[in-house]
Amino acid sequence: MSISSPWRSAFPALAALAAEGQTYLDSAATAQKPQALIDALAGYYASGAANVHRAQHLPGERATRAFEATRQQLAGWLGGVPEQVIFSHGATEALNLLAYGLEHLIGAGDEIVVSALEHHANLLPWQQLALRRQAKLLVLPLDDRGVIDLDAAAPLIGPRTRVLAVSQLSNVLGTWQPLPELLAMARAQGALSVVDGAQGVVHGRHDLSALGCDFYVFSSHKLYGPDGLGVLWGRQEALRQLHHWQFGGEMVQVADYQQAQFRPAPLGFEAGTPPIAAVLGLGASLAWLLAQDSTALAAHEGVLHERLVAGLRARDGVRLLGEPQVALASFTVRDVHSADLAHLLSEQGVAVRAGHHCAMPLLKRLGLPGAIRVSLGLYNDDSDLQRFFSALDNALELLR
Amino acid sequence: MSISSPWRSAFPALAALAAEGQTYLDSAATAQKPQALIDALAGYYASGAANVHRAQHLPGERATRAFEATRQQLAGWLGGVPEQVIFSHGATEALNLLAYGLEHLIGAGDEIVVSALEHHANLLPWQQLALRRQAKLLVLPLDDRGVIDLDAAAPLIGPRTRVLAVSQLSNVLGTWQPLPELLAMARAQGALSVVDGAQGVVHGRHDLSALGCDFYVFSSHKLYGPDGLGVLWGRQEALRQLHHWQFGGEMVQVADYQQAQFRPAPLGFEAGTPPIAAVLGLGASLAWLLAQDSTALAAHEGVLHERLVAGLRARDGVRLLGEPQVALASFTVRDVHSADLAHLLSEQGVAVRAGHHCAMPLLKRLGLPGAIRVSLGLYNDDSDLQRFFSALDNALELLR
Repeated sequence: MSISSPWRSAFPALAALAAEGQTYLDSAATAQKPQALIDALAGYYASGAANVHRAQHLPGERATRAFEATRQQLAGWLGGVPEQVIFSHGATEALNLLAYGLEHLIGAGDEIVVSALEHHANLLPWQQLALRRQAKLLVLPLDDRGVIDLDAAAPLIGPRTRVLAVSQLSNVLGTWQPLPELLAMARAQGALSVVDGAQGVVHGRHDLSALGCDFYVFSSHKLYGPDGLGVLWGRQEALRQLHHWQFGGEMVQVADYQQAQFRPAPLGFEAGTPPIAAVLGLGASLAWLLAQDSTALAAHEGVLHERLVAGLRARDGVRLLGEPQVALASFTVRDVHSADLAHLLSEQGVAVRAGHHCAMPLLKRLGLPGAIRVSLGLYNDDSDLQRFFSALDNALELLR
Repeated sequence: MSISSPWRSAFPALAALAAEGQTYLDSAATAQKPQALIDALAGYYASGAANVHRAQHLPGERATRAFEATRQQLAGWLGGVPEQVIFSHGATEALNLLAYGLEHLIGAGDEIVVSALEHHANLLPWQQLALRRQAKLLVLPLDDRGVIDLDAAAPLIGPRTRVLAVSQLSNVLGTWQPLPELLAMARAQGALSVVDGAQGVVHGRHDLSALGCDFYVFSSHKLYGPDGLGVLWGRQEALRQLHHWQFGGEMVQVADYQQAQFRPAPLGFEAGTPPIAAVLGLGASLAWLLAQDSTALAAHEGVLHERLVAGLRARDGVRLLGEPQVALASFTVRDVHSADLAHLLSEQGVAVRAGHHCAMPLLKRLGLPGAIRVSLGLYNDDSDLQRFFSALDNALELLR
């Protein structure tokens, strides 16, 4: 049975790309945007932009209300209160904020624990923090499916562990990670936990109070929202441990030339004019998303993903990386260079990603210079998969 | 003679606000946006968003080309080559990048020099840097006009000065600062110089190679561009002294779990997915701006500003802060609380800003709890000033 996406028509880029002969299968890099977001951006800028938290005039109050309403909406969705939601300029900035903001807790010989599958954004800030503080960076190994190995993890999360930073859903392997068990290990050792939800937040499981992490980070642009915006959610006791990092307008309570006092979260961590239009845009995207039938959506994504994985498995010489569970699948082909393959796919109008997917150490560990990643959005359908597989078969015929 | 703005119709928000009875005189906080920007944002998101520098597919290549074309456009406008232009998420973030990136050059007892009129964004990052490194923060005093006093500055910029960080145009006083002289003093002492151009870049004087600073920073949203984007321009030798600060995807050359090598500027300082739509939007705003008659524009702004200042001076009990030269004027009224006055202006639909304008120490030094600031954009005209003055007269009648 052929599956079409009832949500596709809400995304004008899908039709525009189709008119150019393009099939978009790179949503894990950035997702396309619903018309509701485009309307929100245009509406904001056309009706009167204004800075937030600064002015008492009408456009300023209106912008501030809409900005804070999005914070409230996110708090309702993620669990907790608005004060737990900090707007950053991206998931990467949020993770850097955490690594710098927690630096005062890390001493020489302390341990920071990440996993072998982390995106650079959730590896390099911790790696550099460890180097600055003469701390140790420990790396949790994976099993053959591409899931953090809990037996191997247990002895690595110990009394010197200060921070555990792990992904919820791998951006390369498409595997859910065993967060409840890992977070319990961290909690038992008194370590703070950071979850990189950049991929996970898009595909469900986001009641953070129930999840039990201290910090959770994601970017707007992968969640069908605008780019230039990230969200950092924190438990209130954990947020109180963060030192201030960026300094500027409106994050300050009292300033003198030689000293200053800063606001607590969230405003104390939002120095300068925030990305106001993007916050309003994410609010519109999220409102659109939450108005859809989430069960139907998960089912649609599930079936498409199964067909993607089955189609790859059925092809001779294709090596799937791990056992992808949702959203995406990465693969290589025996005797074929991924960059060549990606080039031939691109020439046929199929937009997938080739390379190291910002996870060089993982690919090195897998013994691969690169891989092709096919990733799905809720607007994708069977026709996209058919075009991909047909392009893949054509390319492999040429290359082998 | 009454002056109208030939550029007003390019800004849809002006008509929308007028229809609500609003007069926007807060452009120094954030400027309204030309239709060209709104079209660029909507066009980008509706035709196919894609991440930059990562993909070889058509939407990815198109986004990367447009993104880098804006960098090229900025380099052409500011002077220099594209490699000198780093995209940050705002002027505030760019100044924090500099304060952290230059931290390795600051030792105990070294001196960092700012001026008494700096915005918090160009004060607090340096103040906190000085506190972290046991360095001294020296503050250049102002003369009665609100201009940095060169005679007083000369002895304060000395052999221990590592960084001089000053504004080009005061966001409170509307005064141009004597940059050529100050930058020469810094250069003579071997100090690096940072210019906060957030206000100055909007009103001309932006050939940075001729200006002779090491770093120059501004935000897009005050320059009729989208929010969530800043620009950091650097001399190439100065950029080479910056240490990397934020870590994540695509700013890295080679990454292993325990170590990594980073790219040089600009990409090495643009960790994570950049604000792509905003960069494209700034490109559109700037293209629109540069297509206008800059002489006519400066003349228009000049006449309006003269009338604003003359009107304020003509009113009994009004105290002008300094001697504003362009773009804005701040004032207080004898026996009247600024917040009350701003409230009454706001009730009459006049959007000005009241408070400390993110320059608390300056206002404290002036002995004021706050002030009202009226700031102009190229879309303002005589009718806006008339509405402001009429609202001001009404308010003062009520308050006195």
